[in-house]
Amino acid sequence: MEAVRSTAEGVIAVNGKDARAFGTEAAEAPLQQLTIKRRNPTPYDVEIEILFCGVCHSDLHTARNEWHGTVYPCVPGHEIVGRIVSVGGHVSKFKVGDLAGVGCMVDSCRECDYCQEGLEQYCEVGNIGTYNSPDKHLGIRTYGGYSESVVVDEAFVLHIPENLDLAATAPLLCAGITTYSPLKHWNVGPGQKVGVVGLGGLGHMAVKLAKAMGAEVIVFTTSESKFEDARRLGADDVVLSKDPEQMKKYTGKLHFLLDAVSAQHDINLYLSLLRVDGTLALVGAPELPLPVAAFSLIPYRRSLAGSMIGGIAETQEMLDFCGKHGITSDIEMINIQQINEAYERLLKGDVKYRFVIDMASLKK
Amino acid sequence: MEAVRSTAEGVIAVNGKDARAFGTEAAEAPLQQLTIKRRNPTPYDVEIEILFCGVCHSDLHTARNEWHGTVYPCVPGHEIVGRIVSVGGHVSKFKVGDLAGVGCMVDSCRECDYCQEGLEQYCEVGNIGTYNSPDKHLGIRTYGGYSESVVVDEAFVLHIPENLDLAATAPLLCAGITTYSPLKHWNVGPGQKVGVVGLGGLGHMAVKLAKAMGAEVIVFTTSESKFEDARRLGADDVVLSKDPEQMKKYTGKLHFLLDAVSAQHDINLYLSLLRVDGTLALVGAPELPLPVAAFSLIPYRRSLAGSMIGGIAETQEMLDFCGKHGITSDIEMINIQQINEAYERLLKGDVKYRFVIDMASLKK
Repeated sequence: MEAVRSTAEGVIAVNGKDARAFGTEAAEAPLQQLTIKRRNPTPYDVEIEILFCGVCHSDLHTARNEWHGTVYPCVPGHEIVGRIVSVGGHVSKFKVGDLAGVGCMVDSCRECDYCQEGLEQYCEVGNIGTYNSPDKHLGIRTYGGYSESVVVDEAFVLHIPENLDLAATAPLLCAGITTYSPLKHWNVGPGQKVGVVGLGGLGHMAVKLAKAMGAEVIVFTTSESKFEDARRLGADDVVLSKDPEQMKKYTGKLHFLLDAVSAQHDINLYLSLLRVDGTLALVGAPELPLPVAAFSLIPYRRSLAGSMIGGIAETQEMLDFCGKHGITSDIEMINIQQINEAYERLLKGDVKYRFVIDMASLKK
Repeated sequence: MEAVRSTAEGVIAVNGKDARAFGTEAAEAPLQQLTIKRRNPTPYDVEIEILFCGVCHSDLHTARNEWHGTVYPCVPGHEIVGRIVSVGGHVSKFKVGDLAGVGCMVDSCRECDYCQEGLEQYCEVGNIGTYNSPDKHLGIRTYGGYSESVVVDEAFVLHIPENLDLAATAPLLCAGITTYSPLKHWNVGPGQKVGVVGLGGLGHMAVKLAKAMGAEVIVFTTSESKFEDARRLGADDVVLSKDPEQMKKYTGKLHFLLDAVSAQHDINLYLSLLRVDGTLALVGAPELPLPVAAFSLIPYRRSLAGSMIGGIAETQEMLDFCGKHGITSDIEMINIQQINEAYERLLKGDVKYRFVIDMASLKK
């Protein structure tokens, strides 16, 4: 029988079990092996043996406290795929042995208007992140996917299509939904010219997804070295963004632009590519404010927007879409012991296009 | 018989007749009486005796060449109301004696996708402004409404509701449609909280229109002196934007924000007031770029947009809406001889809320 106690934050299940993980004790410290506690599954929880976990730039930002607010120890990782090893008594969506995925959220208030509309990512109370969020069950912080297992309420667990390469599916849980959601929200489809700025972890998924949605896809890049890869990924055209002549070809021509660049860049240049009523959606977040000229927006009724991951139902829709279209991420597999080196390479953009950790390496 | 000749720009009707007007010969010169030429009406034109003309800040910008590109002599004025005094043989919408209005445009290509969709303001070739645009008929520049008459293709002429005060209707042709169009485009209506930033010529129209559309209207102002007037105009609430406590009440609460401020201001502060999927639409154009933080947009899928006047059909819809709801502008009537003084007062924001010129004064 599990011991539980009530606190101001709700019911806390004091009991849990130890799990191997990789994380960090301080902003300046490298990641290393840790032992964390995972709660005993409640009646609504599933316990997942983590097989693969993608490496998102947010992992690095959080591990190094670059967004502030990191509580240590910190175990990153929110592109989780694995197999269900146990289920609570009230679990109805999953059974032991099922493939399962967990993305950026493990809970939300479930009661506000946004949660009711399936927009848990915008929960008014604040969604519970897969890592570095308050954990109402153990009264500590949530720990992410750089671990051998995780226990999550089934409402926040996704079904993984059986036909996809499992390791290459992991990045869909963040990079996939982060790009799928705005493409869907702004109605990308056949007959549309859609631009993708920045060919990295997010951008390369945007190219594959927009193409599968039927759009004509144009990649904008600062480097000619990416031309061949952009076409291989499905781009119909590639534009060297520093060449005004090449850019001019698309002035006022794009229905939608997905901007996945987190470095500073001239946003007015990209806004000028939009047609009337076109939207440029930011999914990368440059550190400093972007100077936006009113006359980049007013004369063509353009919009500059932002978008953050996607809701749970939409994440499932995205996974099903990827299963149907055979879409996964381009990945480079690493062992967990290589994570610090991978972070350094991530900072240099030296990955095509997502590191995925083979979590079996944690048991070595 | 009218002499016509063909040029690269199209058919030019060399003949026309002299008309009294008020305009300027140079950026630094005051406005004074001029004689301009108005073309003889083509079969598709109507000739309008101008009775009233509103004074828009764009008039001042153009007269003083602040947006560059002004060709002199320049006759401003694009909030024109008057009465039809003659019609061409193929005119079908108007007859002599009808009230008529002309706004910011007098023509467009009429063939591009945008023109075909009724978005002439965003014409791909460029719409023909009511003043300071190339005039294909006389081969000179278009001259605006600070004049005794104007000749315009009926396709760009509006019907004016008979039940409204005519002088107070003039500003609807620019200030009215500039605010009506974004309110309609972003589906403002009952059950919505709509903010208006900046209570001037545009802002005061936005309050009246949004209220008539059924929204709850909140005015944001930097000055407590505007509180009473905001409520008189129909605002449900007024917020002093420099008071963080008052602002906090609306954080994440607004469905739509119309920003009519052309001075520099903290756009991130206003973006933070929007709900998920909310839009802040700029209709005022600050001179310098606005620094926009990515995190003002991403976490709530917010949009920063711009909007420019409205199409011809939508302008007629707006006038009919105003007729139905008894909406006009709050105005201060002036004689044309007071225009230079009015410009100085405009610069100080010293007008409630629009100067309108009684064009009878031109004949004195």
